[in-house]
Amino acid sequence: MELPEIIQEASKSFSRLSGVGEKTALRQVFQMTKWSKENLLEMSNNIQALIDLKYCQQCGFFAETEICHICSDESRSCSGQICIVEKITDCLAIENSSAFKGTYYILGGVLNPLLGIGPKELKLDILKDKIINQKIEEVVIAINPSVEGDATSSYIHSMIPENVKVDRIGFGIPIGGSLEYLDSVTISKALENKRLMS
Amino acid sequence: MELPEIIQEASKSFSRLSGVGEKTALRQVFQMTKWSKENLLEMSNNIQALIDLKYCQQCGFFAETEICHICSDESRSCSGQICIVEKITDCLAIENSSAFKGTYYILGGVLNPLLGIGPKELKLDILKDKIINQKIEEVVIAINPSVEGDATSSYIHSMIPENVKVDRIGFGIPIGGSLEYLDSVTISKALENKRLMS
Repeated sequence: MELPEIIQEASKSFSRLSGVGEKTALRQVFQMTKWSKENLLEMSNNIQALIDLKYCQQCGFFAETEICHICSDESRSCSGQICIVEKITDCLAIENSSAFKGTYYILGGVLNPLLGIGPKELKLDILKDKIINQKIEEVVIAINPSVEGDATSSYIHSMIPENVKVDRIGFGIPIGGSLEYLDSVTISKALENKRLMS
Repeated sequence: MELPEIIQEASKSFSRLSGVGEKTALRQVFQMTKWSKENLLEMSNNIQALIDLKYCQQCGFFAETEICHICSDESRSCSGQICIVEKITDCLAIENSSAFKGTYYILGGVLNPLLGIGPKELKLDILKDKIINQKIEEVVIAINPSVEGDATSSYIHSMIPENVKVDRIGFGIPIGGSLEYLDSVTISKALENKRLMS
């Protein structure tokens, strides 16, 4: 059964999203055939607007102007603290916790020689300059734990001047988690990171 | 944490789709921020194209011109058979089975007095004229089984001239299904529809 090209093309676009298979994409497009003209136009324009999304030239976060609201907040940019994360969504997660009051540096990935991602691709030289120029006193590396993440963290640690304190975010049992269901690597890490109760 | 308006608006459009919650919509929009300009423009245009989708004036199926490829196929329109379904997707499912060789009539819903959907809203008078004018000999009612679907099927049956054969699609155990997991209504229907083995 040949579907109209309009339907096929639209569902092709939807199935580009990870987690959306051919069937889901088609189901969503069928649903949209019942939408009003206004809603379809609105969605179409909203997607086009994503092209003009701006990023902060200092940290890589979303920004309305050249500098994002975090970097332009003096109480944060003068805190002497910087947090290094892989992606924008990691940064958002930390912001939502309200537990960090410095600025960020978004790498956009981790070192991965097999995929050709080296220190140059992650612009680590700019990060180094930033740490020196902005008189950063404390670096919190919040790169996710993985083989590549660990290597990237070590690399960044080695390139930061010795007078700067470098921490990596803590690993262990997540709050609400249960030992019964956690993998052994997390449990080893959690035991390694045990702290004296006060 | 306030997200840029561009992101918020786009994810609002996505979350209009049933089965897509706020979190999924946001995740999808974040993914799309990494798409190329070309892919974003393509998706935007594809969605806008849905506005111009045409429907067959005879059966209600998708059509490139006024009449769809099923209704304009003489071997089908002269078969004397018509299949009545609720929605386009039901029609597609039957087409994919290649088990029906007549034309369709897509109701666009079922009778539901509480929602104000009566015989007029489903254009049942047009259906009746069609059955008489096109010399239909056999009507297959393939409306899904539900209280409203059953009432709609009975109503349609009662308005069709007596010389026309009216069947309703068979109900029973789906192929690959297991009695163990089927509901009792389906099992009763399947027993009711038992057939002599040949």
